[in-house]
Amino acid sequence: MTDNPKPLVSPLAPANFPDIPSIAGVRFASAHSGTKYNNRDDVMLAELAPGTTIAGVFTRSATRAAPVLDCQEKIGGPSDGGAAFFVNAGNANAFTGAHGDGSVAAITNATAQTLGISASRVFSSSTGVIGEPLAHDAIIAKLSELKTTLSADAITPAAHAILTTDTFAKGASATFDGDGGKITIAGFAKGSGMIAPDMATMLVYIFTDAKVARPLLQDMVATATDTTFNCITVDSDTSTSDTLLVAATGQSTAAEITATDTKFRAALHDIMLDLAHQVIRDGEGATKFVEIRVTGAESDTDARKVAMSVANSPLVKTAIAGEDPNWGRIVMAVGKSGAAADRDRLAISFGDILVAEKGWVAPDYTEQQGVAYMKNQDITINIDMGLGACTTVAWTCDLTHGYIQINADYRS
Amino acid sequence: MTDNPKPLVSPLAPANFPDIPSIAGVRFASAHSGTKYNNRDDVMLAELAPGTTIAGVFTRSATRAAPVLDCQEKIGGPSDGGAAFFVNAGNANAFTGAHGDGSVAAITNATAQTLGISASRVFSSSTGVIGEPLAHDAIIAKLSELKTTLSADAITPAAHAILTTDTFAKGASATFDGDGGKITIAGFAKGSGMIAPDMATMLVYIFTDAKVARPLLQDMVATATDTTFNCITVDSDTSTSDTLLVAATGQSTAAEITATDTKFRAALHDIMLDLAHQVIRDGEGATKFVEIRVTGAESDTDARKVAMSVANSPLVKTAIAGEDPNWGRIVMAVGKSGAAADRDRLAISFGDILVAEKGWVAPDYTEQQGVAYMKNQDITINIDMGLGACTTVAWTCDLTHGYIQINADYRS
Repeated sequence: MTDNPKPLVSPLAPANFPDIPSIAGVRFASAHSGTKYNNRDDVMLAELAPGTTIAGVFTRSATRAAPVLDCQEKIGGPSDGGAAFFVNAGNANAFTGAHGDGSVAAITNATAQTLGISASRVFSSSTGVIGEPLAHDAIIAKLSELKTTLSADAITPAAHAILTTDTFAKGASATFDGDGGKITIAGFAKGSGMIAPDMATMLVYIFTDAKVARPLLQDMVATATDTTFNCITVDSDTSTSDTLLVAATGQSTAAEITATDTKFRAALHDIMLDLAHQVIRDGEGATKFVEIRVTGAESDTDARKVAMSVANSPLVKTAIAGEDPNWGRIVMAVGKSGAAADRDRLAISFGDILVAEKGWVAPDYTEQQGVAYMKNQDITINIDMGLGACTTVAWTCDLTHGYIQINADYRS
Repeated sequence: MTDNPKPLVSPLAPANFPDIPSIAGVRFASAHSGTKYNNRDDVMLAELAPGTTIAGVFTRSATRAAPVLDCQEKIGGPSDGGAAFFVNAGNANAFTGAHGDGSVAAITNATAQTLGISASRVFSSSTGVIGEPLAHDAIIAKLSELKTTLSADAITPAAHAILTTDTFAKGASATFDGDGGKITIAGFAKGSGMIAPDMATMLVYIFTDAKVARPLLQDMVATATDTTFNCITVDSDTSTSDTLLVAATGQSTAAEITATDTKFRAALHDIMLDLAHQVIRDGEGATKFVEIRVTGAESDTDARKVAMSVANSPLVKTAIAGEDPNWGRIVMAVGKSGAAADRDRLAISFGDILVAEKGWVAPDYTEQQGVAYMKNQDITINIDMGLGACTTVAWTCDLTHGYIQINADYRS
């Protein structure tokens, strides 16, 4: 058994885990299975009341983990009876062949039996080391303890039980007036390294008491993913386990959500963005939170190419770590992105400070301005391509000795 | 003025700069312009005899440096009269607007005048910081000194004068029997960071006394680039200055090279590969030289996607730095590559050691074998996709604290 090698809390962490209200129809429990970590819970169960609709998005990796493949098979199924989410931390059950598929079946069947629900409604996730067999017997042995401790108020320990190299638990919630009653949405996430989501990020669980039909919920989740979790990157490495699950219990007195309900859609988006930002703020070794705003691109695809090329450039990220306003590296990353670019129309700003335009350094820019700006913990890089009207935003962190330390020593 | 911040020689460096024979029709000179580095030459001139044919490949970056744009305009021109290559190190003259274009014109015109040749036959390169004006007057002031010291035997100091963050000069040569006389090819290169060439690498100059028509030389250079410089990556960041120039003086007594001459083609390829490998061995912070062999891919494009995804993965590269046989990260990088992949047909070996196959760890593989293998300085990762007959090879280095140190401190 190993302990988490990252002893410190990220300097970008929020002060506290937020106060998160309970969601009618959802109960949580967590426990210590002893399969990986000492002295902390490493399995989490969320029980969902009958009538809950479930939507999800998953990694597009060609080497997806066994539980992801299982979730993808189940996600479109009917919303009959109760449901559950089950998570273990420390072992990803990825690239574990037929044994891995067997572990997923064993865990989801045992969870179904314990809760008296159908196994087709149990969605499991595993996160941690790739390629090692999952000790599912030790995990299943915890199910009766988990069942007896289920509580509507246990979302905070649940959010902690799913962590691996994370230095803090990530949570967010919102309560607002629906049509005929209050609606609450609450969620939590884990993720710190191997973060360059492609459909969703590491593990994210969101719960609401709103009434939402499954196809509409799926559509809203997929749309919001494109501008939240799919716009973040810690290290350009896409996980084999990325999973985002959203459960709507329908127990609010508010009327059913419709496709034109902007309030619910916006609240869901904001919680997803908040959790995505928290994942970046816990990026392995991160000391800076970086927003990259691209405007004036010829196409949406080009805007994204530029944003992600800058966000994933080791030379840009090390310059930010060194508080060096090295805008030449941003020019380099724009140039290599594959997007249409015209050197003489490109403009780059740090926050409100115009740095470069018309193919060269801006006439009023001074190195001192750049150096002072780079001392901020939150950095905004604006890139105007000067070619069209398409825009995007991406978020990343810097690349530091901390990242090397964590990943040259820890087997993840 | 700053000194090179990388004090040590790469642990992967060859013992010595090779003995390189002179090439009939080529003379070299180098000097200290005082524009950037203390106590070392930082400008280089190669004078090429009348009749020399010149071929070249250049970065495809959309933010190419001014001298690259100038070279691209000139490269297809007629081989009339003498020619020259001119290089300054310390300033890339990239993203310097109209001033940058003016610097290129000033340097190439002054070189032409000094040597009594046409400016359309002077190919210049600049390497170093992006976005700072080039002090071309101080550089031009060195031209008469350079002219008077031109020597056929000065290739070694020339190879040293073009370095920036390099820790060693990179050279290679070959002499073989042509049809009617000996042929010699000799070349040198620079490059250490911002290495993910797209058409060519940083700066590479190759000289031969062979007689080769320009279109054939261009074709042979472009073909060999695809399997040499375009298959290496230090950090996935493509330079704004990548330039490879090859000059054939035609002064050997051997008959003119034809398209079917495999000896010359092979020798040129081998020198390019040798120089490309030396660039990786001088990768910023590198402690391991890594060869990635992909077989069984469905297409050439897929083979390259997989090789470059593994070669550029920060998690794979940090694992190698930590001598951790973390093959799960290779599975991850294959999965995210976008290439067709089947988890259950994929096989991964470290050298001759079969690590994973059929969707899981190989039955005879032990962690001890992997740990022992990873202690080697040269690492080979074999990835068989099990889907088709397409193959490729790529080369990279590990990602270490040294890379962070160099790039969080040094303005390049």
